[in-house]
Amino acid sequence: MDQNHEPGKEDILKAAKRIQPYLHRTPVLTCSMIDELVGASIYFKCENFQKAGAFKSRGATNAVMSLDPYDIKQGVATHSSGNHAAALARAAMLKHIPAYIVMPENSSKVKIAAVKSYGGRITFCASTLEAREEKLNEVLHETNAFEIHPYNNYTIIAGQATAALELIEDQPGLDCIVAPVGGGGLLSGTALATHYFSPSTKVIAAEPAGADDAYQSFYQKKMVLSINPDTIADGLRTSLGSLTFPIIRHFVSDIITINDHATIEAMKLIWERMKIIVEPSSAVTLAMIIKHKHRFAKQKIGIILSGGNVDLMHLPWL
Amino acid sequence: MDQNHEPGKEDILKAAKRIQPYLHRTPVLTCSMIDELVGASIYFKCENFQKAGAFKSRGATNAVMSLDPYDIKQGVATHSSGNHAAALARAAMLKHIPAYIVMPENSSKVKIAAVKSYGGRITFCASTLEAREEKLNEVLHETNAFEIHPYNNYTIIAGQATAALELIEDQPGLDCIVAPVGGGGLLSGTALATHYFSPSTKVIAAEPAGADDAYQSFYQKKMVLSINPDTIADGLRTSLGSLTFPIIRHFVSDIITINDHATIEAMKLIWERMKIIVEPSSAVTLAMIIKHKHRFAKQKIGIILSGGNVDLMHLPWL
Repeated sequence: MDQNHEPGKEDILKAAKRIQPYLHRTPVLTCSMIDELVGASIYFKCENFQKAGAFKSRGATNAVMSLDPYDIKQGVATHSSGNHAAALARAAMLKHIPAYIVMPENSSKVKIAAVKSYGGRITFCASTLEAREEKLNEVLHETNAFEIHPYNNYTIIAGQATAALELIEDQPGLDCIVAPVGGGGLLSGTALATHYFSPSTKVIAAEPAGADDAYQSFYQKKMVLSINPDTIADGLRTSLGSLTFPIIRHFVSDIITINDHATIEAMKLIWERMKIIVEPSSAVTLAMIIKHKHRFAKQKIGIILSGGNVDLMHLPWL
Repeated sequence: MDQNHEPGKEDILKAAKRIQPYLHRTPVLTCSMIDELVGASIYFKCENFQKAGAFKSRGATNAVMSLDPYDIKQGVATHSSGNHAAALARAAMLKHIPAYIVMPENSSKVKIAAVKSYGGRITFCASTLEAREEKLNEVLHETNAFEIHPYNNYTIIAGQATAALELIEDQPGLDCIVAPVGGGGLLSGTALATHYFSPSTKVIAAEPAGADDAYQSFYQKKMVLSINPDTIADGLRTSLGSLTFPIIRHFVSDIITINDHATIEAMKLIWERMKIIVEPSSAVTLAMIIKHKHRFAKQKIGIILSGGNVDLMHLPWL
């Protein structure tokens, strides 16, 4: 890994350049009906259109492409039930190395199919964090693959920061950027990019009320783990990491929770009015803004729509 | 109406300029996975992102904006169960005149809500064509409103032509453009725009096998009406019109039918891989291309995704 320190301005710019050949520069969309509803101007950064369907491709690609080829000649590995799994499999495929993915056996069929479509080698395990970590250790021992953690990794954070960098370039002068928070990779990257490239813009996080470890950690000023998270936003169930929490504490203005009912309503609103597919983890941001619209009145707000991987056979409003 | 002749080059350019302040220039998207599947390069013109969710806003806005204000001071009227209804209501709202919309009582709730959201004044009727026309005549008699037919109208055709004009501007050198065909407004406009602005590009239509009046008319070289159409593509159940058929006969290379099963599969593929919402009428194009992919191999193909108005409570694959 060429980066053992918190990403600085140059690290984020280098990450952007490094991943550019492999990823989409995603569009920024607006919706006049939603602007009227909120009473603000919202700019949606569409990472649901990103390769492999989520911002996770930014971090995974930056990590794989910045590693010493010697270190990863046996491949890379991670445990993930979701978008990081597919993103890492795709990044490894680009580099012609194997990706070993430990997935809980209750992972959605869609996510399993996505990992397989990128040639990922899947090992299933029980769904607890302990079982995932234990199985990953076995896999690492057997394969000599290099572990790439989904968020507690500075090259991952630098990669995720490039989404906000592009948003800031395309839409200068934002009053705030709102990102969802799970493990904090996207949020810490967003906070760093905003700090360096648009320091007058605030960064605010939205978090499911049923998985509010980041909110608790932020206000208790110490790491609080996510115990039995209960939310439809499957990308946001994880706890903050030792590398993401300090960045979030330092550079994020506020973390606000939102219930799943509001998230599902906001997700349906985005589908209906913007005609784009976003997953629940993406919709927590708009849901939170709608609930607190007085607070955001007349602002220019950037939202990072984190991903669009949804099982179309099981929609949350049906 | 300032246009009683088949739209020429200048009419299409004027329409584009006339509607530009009121509508989106929709993006052209690509999808590497679908390109690989088909073995061609496909450029999707995203009219599902258009105002009111469909290309219909182009024609309706061009018609309303080009009429003599004196002629429409009592308002405009049409019968439509679908996207033309909402598009005309929106165009009338922009002009501060009433829009009287005759809708069959079995119209979807989503479409009814869209018409109401633009202030359209709805009169319900039975779902047969006779009942619709009879009720519209009553409404026209009572209100003195000006009828704007959904497709058998040259200003409507000129408006619909602007979608292909933009596609040709953004993506020159297409081998063909594929559009769906119902009443033929979009198809005849696409054929004229392509004839004038990219004459080496062929225009091919896709039509549901269960509503194949355009296919029959094209090959029998005479108007064949759509009797008891049976297709999920609710925008494509109507018959060609006396103005659209001659243009289609003259300027379209081929009309190819496709069954609903393939259309639903293609619709789900677009949702899953492109993360955008399209309605069944939009998906007949890709479905037809996938079925006949040998014929389109290695070509540069433009597809007009006609709209994205779907009832999210009732998805065709569930």
